[in-house]
Amino acid sequence: MSEDREIQAALAANAAFYRALCQGDYAAMEALWSASEPLLCSHPGTQALHGRAAVLESWRAILSEPPNIETRDARAVVIRGLAFVSCLETIGDTVLTATNAWVWEGGRWRMVHHQAGYLALEQTQDSAPDGRLH
Amino acid sequence: MSEDREIQAALAANAAFYRALCQGDYAAMEALWSASEPLLCSHPGTQALHGRAAVLESWRAILSEPPNIETRDARAVVIRGLAFVSCLETIGDTVLTATNAWVWEGGRWRMVHHQAGYLALEQTQDSAPDGRLH
Repeated sequence: MSEDREIQAALAANAAFYRALCQGDYAAMEALWSASEPLLCSHPGTQALHGRAAVLESWRAILSEPPNIETRDARAVVIRGLAFVSCLETIGDTVLTATNAWVWEGGRWRMVHHQAGYLALEQTQDSAPDGRLH
Repeated sequence: MSEDREIQAALAANAAFYRALCQGDYAAMEALWSASEPLLCSHPGTQALHGRAAVLESWRAILSEPPNIETRDARAVVIRGLAFVSCLETIGDTVLTATNAWVWEGGRWRMVHHQAGYLALEQTQDSAPDGRLH
């Protein structure tokens, strides 16, 4: 598959991830994550979870009250056969910056990593009066 | 190289990254990032940057006033030949959760992705009274 098609497929997988999340569809979410690789996932404001069991357990809890997320600015690159997709997530008044990483497994992209963090909260940080930490 | 040695090398590379950052050592930082892969980087509270030029420019600005960062809980996994390291960063009173991804290039791990986001700020989010977004 050409890199352009890989990137289009990664963007489609990324959209499917947010669809499963918003629809509270645990079966779809479970199928989106790799079944064979070590997984890691960092939800907003929380330390990274490692391992398929911990990651899927966290999603099961989240999907019991699915958030309403709009995404924009999705951009994908392929690095040594893994896809990395960055995007912005909007949930109500909150905007998050997310990175999702994917491996090609069983003829499609499957997730191995998700991290979402708050956007533009620097000015609430007393320790960063200039609005920049690093 | 065994996977255990790959993981030890990834943790050492991760430590070298934070050493370069705290020491404001731009030459070391530049050498830590892959010279051949597409790079992406999401600093705390900011949208992802894509491409070596944008990523290194952001580090040059940050290294002009290097932060004092302590790290802990570093944990590495290898996924299809890429290393992913999660850790916590403490800068003054602020704690961040970070993910750093690495490719094996020229006999060592070189960075392709960094994301750091604020830890445990959920309770400041009006839209998430239960302290959880996703």
